[in-house]
This record gives sequence, structure tokens and C-alpha cells, in this order.
Amino acid sequence: MEQIFEKNSKNKVVRGAKRAVYEKDKVFEILDSGFLCHISFVMNEQPFIIPTAYARMGDEIIIHGSNKSRMLEVLEKGGEACVCVTHLDGLVLARSAMHHSVNYRSVVVFGKAREITNFDEKNEALFKVMEQMLPGRWEEIRQPNEKELQVTKVLAIKIETASAKVRMGPPVDDKEDYELPYWAGVVPTYNNYKRPLSDPELPGIVEVPSSVKTLLNI
Amino acid sequence: MEQIFEKNSKNKVVRGAKRAVYEKDKVFEILDSGFLCHISFVMNEQPFIIPTAYARMGDEIIIHGSNKSRMLEVLEKGGEACVCVTHLDGLVLARSAMHHSVNYRSVVVFGKAREITNFDEKNEALFKVMEQMLPGRWEEIRQPNEKELQVTKVLAIKIETASAKVRMGPPVDDKEDYELPYWAGVVPTYNNYKRPLSDPELPGIVEVPSSVKTLLNI
Repeated sequence: MEQIFEKNSKNKVVRGAKRAVYEKDKVFEILDSGFLCHISFVMNEQPFIIPTAYARMGDEIIIHGSNKSRMLEVLEKGGEACVCVTHLDGLVLARSAMHHSVNYRSVVVFGKAREITNFDEKNEALFKVMEQMLPGRWEEIRQPNEKELQVTKVLAIKIETASAKVRMGPPVDDKEDYELPYWAGVVPTYNNYKRPLSDPELPGIVEVPSSVKTLLNI
Repeated sequence: MEQIFEKNSKNKVVRGAKRAVYEKDKVFEILDSGFLCHISFVMNEQPFIIPTAYARMGDEIIIHGSNKSRMLEVLEKGGEACVCVTHLDGLVLARSAMHHSVNYRSVVVFGKAREITNFDEKNEALFKVMEQMLPGRWEEIRQPNEKELQVTKVLAIKIETASAKVRMGPPVDDKEDYELPYWAGVVPTYNNYKRPLSDPELPGIVEVPSSVKTLLNI
């Protein structure tokens, strides 16, 4: 049976409701296609946003940082989090100014966080965060030691509710504007990578690892 | 004289303070290099984030949407906004897991909004939003008519305070890890465009306009 996030006052898409997606597997697919999210939290009634790396682990969003982080402190104390992941897929160029748009896939997650303190679970969570940024990298490097695990705070934000918005396809203009002699269409956008820059401190020539080769298709 | 945003409890960068940037011109440069922001606001003590198009006009951030937008309603009524713009510049691949990072330029803006109701000012603001997405596009299309201006809400969020965080350059590892035989370096990332897809509804062949050609360098 297909699982969906029930609509409520938090996750219900008000604007552009026809672009709304509540199916859990589709929401998770969008979350799994990125590694950088924006997290919003409230401190002294003031909204804050911080961009940070994340991973999805089951129905939780993993984030990490230092013990000094204000965001982690607020969330750890039970503050509500709103997490947003956005993939830009294209510029939608219509015949009229007001129908210009972008193609995108975005997810908004609402939930509270728990701290992960168990070292094995913490290590697994940090592995997932790296795996989401660059699959295979974890096996190519020095993994966290006890001291590092101790000074790193790892939180798991429960995906209590969520929704996605997706726009794709060509522009949609007002009927009478289709007669205008203007070009309209989509310019697809994507995140691209350039050739890796080896750290100048490397001792001589060290081969680029397979995680990077796979990413760059080289 | 160089202008800076005075540090206060909102804009002060707590984590990674050495990456903090408070110079107004540098903050503005980062804001001017994008067209998609994330806006956070508080509704019933709950934080929300919405990704949206923006432009910087002087010391204001312009956003727009329909009269139905919850976000615009909250901000119009005097709710505090936090606006974040993030440019991802590279994957920073260190010798140890915990020193992995990303190169980025991000700005966080704090302020309250005013509604722009004057039609000329509104038109100018919408022009700026389009110009920031695709310079030159405004002249190639049907510009907003009175009815469209009437049903579109345009807000200007005052950049009351702001700060940026910038990381660039190679990874920084713990001293003893430099002896490890692992590759380390940076994989630069950037937003790229593919060849435009003409709207299937175009009446025959319409030449791709100069805004798109300039963007794609074709």
C-alpha cells in the first residue's frame, strides 16, 4: 500500500496545490537526491536558517556539527525544525513575464530532533552523511576516532510530516499569449563538477580515488 | 569608507567565525550571484521555509507571489523574515572523515517586509527579479499588465542586518594525518545549463533569444 504524509496545517501546500506531492516514496526520493539542506529554527521568536549537510536514514534526517552550534542546541532542547531540500531543474521561460517560473523538486520536512549519543549509531549516521555527499568516500579515508565522535554532535530530526512540490515541463502561458511571436521554452539546469584539484600538500602524485572518478565519470 | 553590518545576536556567526564576512559589498556580491533563496518565517511558533525567486534592490530583497501565499501574508503583517542564499562551490575531500566539508558562499539576511503597492515600483521590482534570473529576458516578452500587477503581491524585505560565510581552498587536515597515503583535494561544483528545449507549442521555428544565447554562451 502506498504510504502518504497526511495533510495538516504544517505540510499542506497552499500555493500551487496541483504541484504538491505527499507520497512518502517520492518525498524520500527527492531527499535522497541531495546532500545540502536548509534548516530553519526559532530562537527568541526570531527565525534563523542555516545551510548544512544531511542524510536521510529511514524516517529521520541526520545532521551534525560542533557542540557550539546554536542550531543544534535549539533543536536538541526540543525546538521545532523545518528542513528544506531544493533541486533546481530548469528555467521556465514563458511568453509573458508573469508565467516565468522554474522547474524544481523541493521537499519541506517538519519534526523535532533527538541527539544520537551511542558511538556506533553516531558513526553510522556520519557514514550516511558522507555517503549522501560522495558515495564510496568513507572507505578511502581515516574514519572518525573516539575523540572526534565525542566533540561532534549528531542529531536525528524525525520526519514527522513532510510534503514536496514538483514542477516540470514547458511553460504554461495565457491562451491569448500563444499567438505572440516570442520564443518560449525551458533551459535545463543541473549541478555539475569540474576536474578535481589535488591538495597541494599531497606528497607527490596520489591517484584520484574511485569515489571521485565515479562522480565525474572519468 | 567600507561599510559593514555591525555584529549582533542575529547576524553574528558563532560556528566557523573565521569564515564570517560582514562587509556590505561582499554580502551584496553573494546576493547578486543568485536568484533562488530560501525564506524562513514563523507561524504559530512553528518555523517554515519556502524556496523562492528574489532580487536585491539596494538594501532590500524583493520577493513576489500570489495573494494567497501564507508566507507573504505573515511577512506583510510584520513577521520577521530570515532569507538565506547559498552557492555551493566545491566538495572538500580531506584525509579524515571529520575534515570533509564544502566550499561555499552563503548569506543570511534578517529583516521585516513592506508591501510594494505602487504599480511603477511593482513593475520595476518584478523586472529586477527577472533580471537576476536571466538578464535581458524582460525585453523579449510580454510585460505585466495592470490586472496581473493587481493580483501579484510584491514584498521588499529590508536588509536590516546580514552576514556571509565563505569557505574556499583545499582541505585542512589534522597535522598527523598529512602523512596518510590518501588522496585529498577539492571537486569544484557549479550550476550548469543544458541546451534549451523549445516549447512544443511554438508556431514553427522561433529563434532562441539573445538572453538564452548569452547565458549558454552560444
